[in-house]
Amino acid sequence: MSLETVSTTRSHGGTQGVYTHRSAQTGTDMTFSVFVPDHAEGAKLPVLWYLSGLTCTHANVTEKGEFREACARHGIIFVAPDTSPRGEDVPDEDTYDFGKGAGFYVDATQEPWKANFRMRSYIESELPALIGEAFPADMARQAITGHSMGGHGALTIGLRNPERFRSISAFSPIVSPLACPWGEKALTGYIGADRTDWREYDACALIADGARAPHLLVDQGTADGFLEEQLKTQLLDEACEAAGMPATIRMQEGYDHSYYFISTFLGEHVAWHAAHLSA
Amino acid sequence: MSLETVSTTRSHGGTQGVYTHRSAQTGTDMTFSVFVPDHAEGAKLPVLWYLSGLTCTHANVTEKGEFREACARHGIIFVAPDTSPRGEDVPDEDTYDFGKGAGFYVDATQEPWKANFRMRSYIESELPALIGEAFPADMARQAITGHSMGGHGALTIGLRNPERFRSISAFSPIVSPLACPWGEKALTGYIGADRTDWREYDACALIADGARAPHLLVDQGTADGFLEEQLKTQLLDEACEAAGMPATIRMQEGYDHSYYFISTFLGEHVAWHAAHLSA
Repeated sequence: MSLETVSTTRSHGGTQGVYTHRSAQTGTDMTFSVFVPDHAEGAKLPVLWYLSGLTCTHANVTEKGEFREACARHGIIFVAPDTSPRGEDVPDEDTYDFGKGAGFYVDATQEPWKANFRMRSYIESELPALIGEAFPADMARQAITGHSMGGHGALTIGLRNPERFRSISAFSPIVSPLACPWGEKALTGYIGADRTDWREYDACALIADGARAPHLLVDQGTADGFLEEQLKTQLLDEACEAAGMPATIRMQEGYDHSYYFISTFLGEHVAWHAAHLSA
Repeated sequence: MSLETVSTTRSHGGTQGVYTHRSAQTGTDMTFSVFVPDHAEGAKLPVLWYLSGLTCTHANVTEKGEFREACARHGIIFVAPDTSPRGEDVPDEDTYDFGKGAGFYVDATQEPWKANFRMRSYIESELPALIGEAFPADMARQAITGHSMGGHGALTIGLRNPERFRSISAFSPIVSPLACPWGEKALTGYIGADRTDWREYDACALIADGARAPHLLVDQGTADGFLEEQLKTQLLDEACEAAGMPATIRMQEGYDHSYYFISTFLGEHVAWHAAHLSA
């Protein structure tokens, strides 16, 4: 696994890097960003994963997320992967919510997607191995967060891997792909028509089926135009209550779906994860 | 003076707005952004101006500057204007450092620039009148900062207007257009060949000629690729020392010219200005 450095830039008392590598899972080159706070020689730092939303790459949160100050203060490595495979040979559709930029953190089983669209295995297996090898990361201490489609990714990957992630948070997540147009389109296309196969990609269904998060924090803006039709935060609230799983789900008055919202609370999420990662 | 709202978005406990208006100075529509922290009904808040660098619009600092948390905490309105007139009728050259995106905060005297390129009067007169009218701004309490070409703008506009600005700061400023290629090209084009006419647009010359800043703070990255040829921070150091004017000029180890640098220290600048604005 060889890593190519695209850029490293000093910021907030640490190093913001952008890297590419050849992914065996997606069969493409993949780009991601990593922020590493200054630390003692030989020290290993806990890792917070951030999964991005539809249309995004690693760059959106890296430029607009306002996470570095908190990561530097708490000594946390911040990893931001891309949202799908990229490249001319990768199949695509002429739409923002399926194909490139819309991997939905699944391993596709359907043609023509299944060869490249393996973002689940990329995030669950391939990229963590690379991060553990190439950065001063303590892989025994990981947490995960994300936004919108990436909030769905954080919730489902987190819930399926409770031994790996000490805490899970999300901004404006798609909480139930089974119950919204974005999810129905994506999972039909990537996974097929049988909805029983979708349940491992649906946070509410995972909880109903017995998955548990050790610690869960969700922020959702009340002025988010996708709330009613796509995000449906109350379904997660109901799933947690039905399962008796503690969760902090906050409706943030007047905030929308943008990075103006995420950047307001991401530093607080970093601090919340830090408390669980240092315990 | 009528103002059109392009967007308002809740962020960090305040409102991030983008606005356009017809400018009498530039003869064009002009776009700018304003962040207003939540405040008591009827209260007026001090104003921090941020002038942007070459190729930028209001959007760069608005998206990447990481200033809102500090502005909300200290109760400061943050105004980010564009860097030049825009539009198909505005003359331009096919270069990044002259014409559109490169107004250099001067009132041009040369053809074909003088009709539109009046960013000095726009920032010194027209826009403050509009801000004072349309926002809950206490125009008796103003401060100014900026980056690169906008650091030059903040220094020169601040030094020429000590009664208006209680404090001046800058990131990676062009400290002497008389002594660098960017400055020589811009001032020759906008102001003409007579260098005596340039002195009011040169921070070092203004200080040598008697201008004084009540409080001055400058941050400059040591890994900034423009430092040696264009920015020449040491000339400002020498001008302040020769004039006996106190100034805090900090070389920040390893930082470059980007918003990864600015965002690291802009919150600290906001707090520094806040101390002077509240006095």
